[in-house]
Amino acid sequence: MKHNNPSLQVTADQQIKMAESPIHKPGNGEVLLHIKCTGICGSDIHFWKTGAIGPLKVEGDCCLGHEASGIVLKVGEGVDELVVGDRVAVEPGVPCEKCWLCREGRYNLCEDVKFAGVYPYHGTLQRFKVHPAKWLHKIPDDVTYAEGALLEPLSVVLHGIRRAGLTLGRGAVICGAGPIGLIALLSSRASGAHPLVITDLEASRLAFAKKLVPECETYQVQRNLSAEENAKSIRKLFGDSEYGAPETVLECTGVESSIITGAFAVRRGGTVMVIGVGRPIVNNIPFMHLSLGEINLKFINRYTDTWPAGIAAVKGKLLDLKPLVSHVFPLEKAVDAMHICADLSQGSIKVQIVDEIDINPEDVE
Amino acid sequence: MKHNNPSLQVTADQQIKMAESPIHKPGNGEVLLHIKCTGICGSDIHFWKTGAIGPLKVEGDCCLGHEASGIVLKVGEGVDELVVGDRVAVEPGVPCEKCWLCREGRYNLCEDVKFAGVYPYHGTLQRFKVHPAKWLHKIPDDVTYAEGALLEPLSVVLHGIRRAGLTLGRGAVICGAGPIGLIALLSSRASGAHPLVITDLEASRLAFAKKLVPECETYQVQRNLSAEENAKSIRKLFGDSEYGAPETVLECTGVESSIITGAFAVRRGGTVMVIGVGRPIVNNIPFMHLSLGEINLKFINRYTDTWPAGIAAVKGKLLDLKPLVSHVFPLEKAVDAMHICADLSQGSIKVQIVDEIDINPEDVE
Amino acid sequence: MKHNNPSLQVTADQQIKMAESPIHKPGNGEVLLHIKCTGICGSDIHFWKTGAIGPLKVEGDCCLGHEASGIVLKVGEGVDELVVGDRVAVEPGVPCEKCWLCREGRYNLCEDVKFAGVYPYHGTLQRFKVHPAKWLHKIPDDVTYAEGALLEPLSVVLHGIRRAGLTLGRGAVICGAGPIGLIALLSSRASGAHPLVITDLEASRLAFAKKLVPECETYQVQRNLSAEENAKSIRKLFGDSEYGAPETVLECTGVESSIITGAFAVRRGGTVMVIGVGRPIVNNIPFMHLSLGEINLKFINRYTDTWPAGIAAVKGKLLDLKPLVSHVFPLEKAVDAMHICADLSQGSIKVQIVDEIDINPEDVE
Amino acid sequence: MKHNNPSLQVTADQQIKMAESPIHKPGNGEVLLHIKCTGICGSDIHFWKTGAIGPLKVEGDCCLGHEASGIVLKVGEGVDELVVGDRVAVEPGVPCEKCWLCREGRYNLCEDVKFAGVYPYHGTLQRFKVHPAKWLHKIPDDVTYAEGALLEPLSVVLHGIRRAGLTLGRGAVICGAGPIGLIALLSSRASGAHPLVITDLEASRLAFAKKLVPECETYQVQRNLSAEENAKSIRKLFGDSEYGAPETVLECTGVESSIITGAFAVRRGGTVMVIGVGRPIVNNIPFMHLSLGEINLKFINRYTDTWPAGIAAVKGKLLDLKPLVSHVFPLEKAVDAMHICADLSQGSIKVQIVDEIDINPEDVE
Repeated sequence: MKHNNPSLQVTADQQIKMAESPIHKPGNGEVLLHIKCTGICGSDIHFWKTGAIGPLKVEGDCCLGHEASGIVLKVGEGVDELVVGDRVAVEPGVPCEKCWLCREGRYNLCEDVKFAGVYPYHGTLQRFKVHPAKWLHKIPDDVTYAEGALLEPLSVVLHGIRRAGLTLGRGAVICGAGPIGLIALLSSRASGAHPLVITDLEASRLAFAKKLVPECETYQVQRNLSAEENAKSIRKLFGDSEYGAPETVLECTGVESSIITGAFAVRRGGTVMVIGVGRPIVNNIPFMHLSLGEINLKFINRYTDTWPAGIAAVKGKLLDLKPLVSHVFPLEKAVDAMHICADLSQGSIKVQIVDEIDINPEDVE
Repeated sequence: MKHNNPSLQVTADQQIKMAESPIHKPGNGEVLLHIKCTGICGSDIHFWKTGAIGPLKVEGDCCLGHEASGIVLKVGEGVDELVVGDRVAVEPGVPCEKCWLCREGRYNLCEDVKFAGVYPYHGTLQRFKVHPAKWLHKIPDDVTYAEGALLEPLSVVLHGIRRAGLTLGRGAVICGAGPIGLIALLSSRASGAHPLVITDLEASRLAFAKKLVPECETYQVQRNLSAEENAKSIRKLFGDSEYGAPETVLECTGVESSIITGAFAVRRGGTVMVIGVGRPIVNNIPFMHLSLGEINLKFINRYTDTWPAGIAAVKGKLLDLKPLVSHVFPLEKAVDAMHICADLSQGSIKVQIVDEIDINPEDVE
Repeated sequence: MKHNNPSLQVTADQQIKMAESPIHKPGNGEVLLHIKCTGICGSDIHFWKTGAIGPLKVEGDCCLGHEASGIVLKVGEGVDELVVGDRVAVEPGVPCEKCWLCREGRYNLCEDVKFAGVYPYHGTLQRFKVHPAKWLHKIPDDVTYAEGALLEPLSVVLHGIRRAGLTLGRGAVICGAGPIGLIALLSSRASGAHPLVITDLEASRLAFAKKLVPECETYQVQRNLSAEENAKSIRKLFGDSEYGAPETVLECTGVESSIITGAFAVRRGGTVMVIGVGRPIVNNIPFMHLSLGEINLKFINRYTDTWPAGIAAVKGKLLDLKPLVSHVFPLEKAVDAMHICADLSQGSIKVQIVDEIDINPEDVE
Repeated sequence: MKHNNPSLQVTADQQIKMAESPIHKPGNGEVLLHIKCTGICGSDIHFWKTGAIGPLKVEGDCCLGHEASGIVLKVGEGVDELVVGDRVAVEPGVPCEKCWLCREGRYNLCEDVKFAGVYPYHGTLQRFKVHPAKWLHKIPDDVTYAEGALLEPLSVVLHGIRRAGLTLGRGAVICGAGPIGLIALLSSRASGAHPLVITDLEASRLAFAKKLVPECETYQVQRNLSAEENAKSIRKLFGDSEYGAPETVLECTGVESSIITGAFAVRRGGTVMVIGVGRPIVNNIPFMHLSLGEINLKFINRYTDTWPAGIAAVKGKLLDLKPLVSHVFPLEKAVDAMHICADLSQGSIKVQIVDEIDINPEDVE
């Protein structure tokens, strides 16, 4: 073995560090990947800063990272769909495949999933990673590793909009212009939603959104207004339409006031799709309003079967994810990348960590 | 005119009284009905005792009642689907038929609906009522007036279970063993849901439920347990099933703790259908749990296109609504009926007001 | 009255002619329109050349036309949503609004619809037409009358793709590059379908399609190949995708061999949406193949509630319908327009008939 | 080993015979079953008499049978959900679990499924069979082996009615009173469909159906009437209902004239669910009628995730499958059973083969 395996790890006492990780051999149905690119997600920062997300707790050193792409270095037994040299995007959750949730295709709900970067399962912020071939997706030559890594957050959005059901010429509101909100904006435009409104507290984030999708409207949420009043202003942006309100709200913040604003903004008979995850418990939900309007409140947990669609959407130039990458760091500087990402004053959107060296598969024996 | 028109009215200062109402002539597309039976609904009591339900306020004298059946006495111009003597059930909401919500068949969401018994629209707790023929449904000879009136609360349930999507052999929990909960129990059984569990705080109500549907399980909610703990006990009743939890929760109380219990009881990927209406604002909703489980939270507002199905269900002996009628009063005693209904210690289930006199259509000119 | 009302009429003996039609006063809920633009549809040609479409027969003189836009000249009583001078697109079917199909929002299936241009209901190929305000849709200033008229065929497609359920990054095949096929292509692209393949027998039509949506692939159907063989070649165009086949086929020809090709091309678990209408009876449907693949065969009849979405899609620049207009004639030359349209050697796509004179509402009393 | 393993086999030259089969050891994730009961399906007879069903061909000796229940004798490594002595129903198809169809939960559509009793995969008409634990379902004590075996045809029906979407009080027609049709009748009744009509050519089969579900209506198909005329007569049985026609047709014959009758009987906007499988190619499909009515034509291929629901339905006494068993044979007489089943004059409904000996697990080493 001529290569080391540097890895960014979070610790049980909420530190991060670079460490050297072992390089595993691919077992039956598995391949060994050289991870070429990993994007940092808010959840990585959250694990670092708070040590947990809901029931998931960091109880020991764990390599972070789950938005990744790479290249196949070795294939284990029983792998016939991938060969050495294939460029792939990583679907980071490996479900049990025994329970009835797996059986019915809702493997994202499997209670026994092994998810990359969630303790005790090591993630993709390392040079080498073994992963089951079944949960890897070949990417075409004209899709970059950066885009390949962005297929993971795109998958979250694709799953959300599939379940919400956007259709051509029906309006949508996206709450929040962070990375998920921006991908939701691009995806909603690519799905034909119109009118299309994105909201945020920060004017600069809205300006970026408007540059990304010039046909959208932006709405700066007013802190001094109630959720109902903000919703009223948002609805005015749908004034031209016979419906006078959006069919769908894609809530990408997880913040209580934003959820409630969405509930008051959406049309009667519409859907609020809760994509953002915030506090475990949310208060002040306007049930009477939801009842009178038969408004569906839907939730998602990750994704199922989204990579093929994400690849097709990128390859087909239906959306361009590349402008979302605001910072790029080499793997050795992963700690710096985490700090930039955690410092809101830096205005980062998507920070990616890349490993540009070429590795000869023969050097990894 | 040989007949008077006694009418039970609620007043702006939260009184009820019997009064004499005018008898109107049926206009274009309308018929004049002799109302034979009206059931009292919790909302009638609520209007009386609090003067409002959400945005709907009692601002003047208003005849209550919307769960009704009757017989056609006169038909107006342009009515070709009904003739004098037809026995009918009343669909009490008359939507605008101009807005896009009406156009797309979601007329229950019409913002300009004229609903019987909601100020300023007079209800069915009177002898004579004019109603559009379009919103009346003929009932067969073997369906009684009592059953005809019960088609309205059955409609609420049918609409809920249609949107929730019960299927044969998948489990359901019904929260609350009041009239709507009991009808939900009967309807869930008739729809093939199993295992079937009904919950309530009161053992006597659960005993009644068990008599109604012997194949169901009952669960007495423990006040000293948390929602999550009650949910855990409910789930145990699904222990035999591979799913280990119900596919669907039909929440028929509108009470916060019950809603949360439902959210924790339902399977991952399941649906909590909120049928009961309680406070305008609800707190402590476990969003993280809903997200992790992709649990849909759905709401309903009345019903659309449910009477034909309700009539078929009753006629086809798929469910027997008659045991729900615990008290019957003549129209002249409607005030007494309201008092029985409002007094929880009386243990009434469904109180109906009937008008058993026969009226010769020729006497109503 | 300072204006005449020239009108293109089809006769019971399969002739067409220009005639002078009466100008009606708008009744309750109606408006008088100056029709500014009408597109000719294949069904108009079919009525002329064969005297019938299925059960609909031309039994007397009837003004044709149903793809139309215009301007409001007069408003009848009870119209509060439109004023004189409003520019509108015409939804040409006026359903009964009494039957249960209307009640449940499926008014396109109403068995008692009055459809413009279907005998005995006069259409829009005349200068003046009275139409119910409810079935007119205001178009914004930046949507032209030509686009306003194209909202009708767009509506057919919107209804089809809504019911078929296109989603971002899932593949689609459109069979047929005629006007409906081309609009389906534009709409599928705007809905995010990819890979996107359009088929036709004629290379020139495919070349036009490719110019319209450069990201699509084209497939020239080979007459000497079987449906199954053509399907195999079409599937190869999905070779890059993990699915290897389209999720959806939008069949826009109504031709038997094309329907069967679609059935063999679509993925297991996919949908063939039959939009094109051809012969009453179709043979050689591969039921075993459809069963093994659980392929849904869906059908549409016109549309419900599509104009608002169509207007939003055009206004939001999600699709550009204008390149479809290959020929424009003034109203007085409507007979010439019909002949161009009926002569396949002319290669017309969409032929529109316009009436560019300005009419002072005061001149129409 | 103290036991032999008698097995009913079909041969490549369309013979059947009893033979002695090897007893395999359960591998990783597998168990060894003593098969207690297997029902004979029309497809078993078809394989015997014609040597093929569509693309599936009998190219060598193959043990038939796939409607089965049994008891666990030995468990392989990695099996933690079953123990020796568990009574189970067999889900006979074992999908590849690698393809995207498996991934999305549509494992019935997997192109690489190993299905019991389909050459070269041996079936359940033998004493001992190894099967993956994942595809076995524990049955409660109060569900018999006979019922356990009937869960397989029930699964076909459950899958069909789930995808068709029966709801309480909406009408259904079942075409065909054979075993699948009768189970569809029981399941439709248990799902609340009403009015409920079953059709067949034979009066005796209809009489049996009526005894099974007294609330249904029967319609004897008239050979001398056209499909459209038979459909008209069927519709009359829905005359009381406002809809005047069934919402759903469950086609359980696979016969062309019956499919067409269903298409003409179903309401506008309804669904014809094709459950029966007949000839590969079907002619005379009334596409114009299907288009005008927006009638969905849906197809199924076996089932996904139906055993738990089937078990719950039987355990919950929602339907009683036992009366369907018309003949029972011991395993040694399996050839006789096949002959009875193949001889239509015998009027068998469901023929089951049982193996009543008790086997001590210790005797199978």
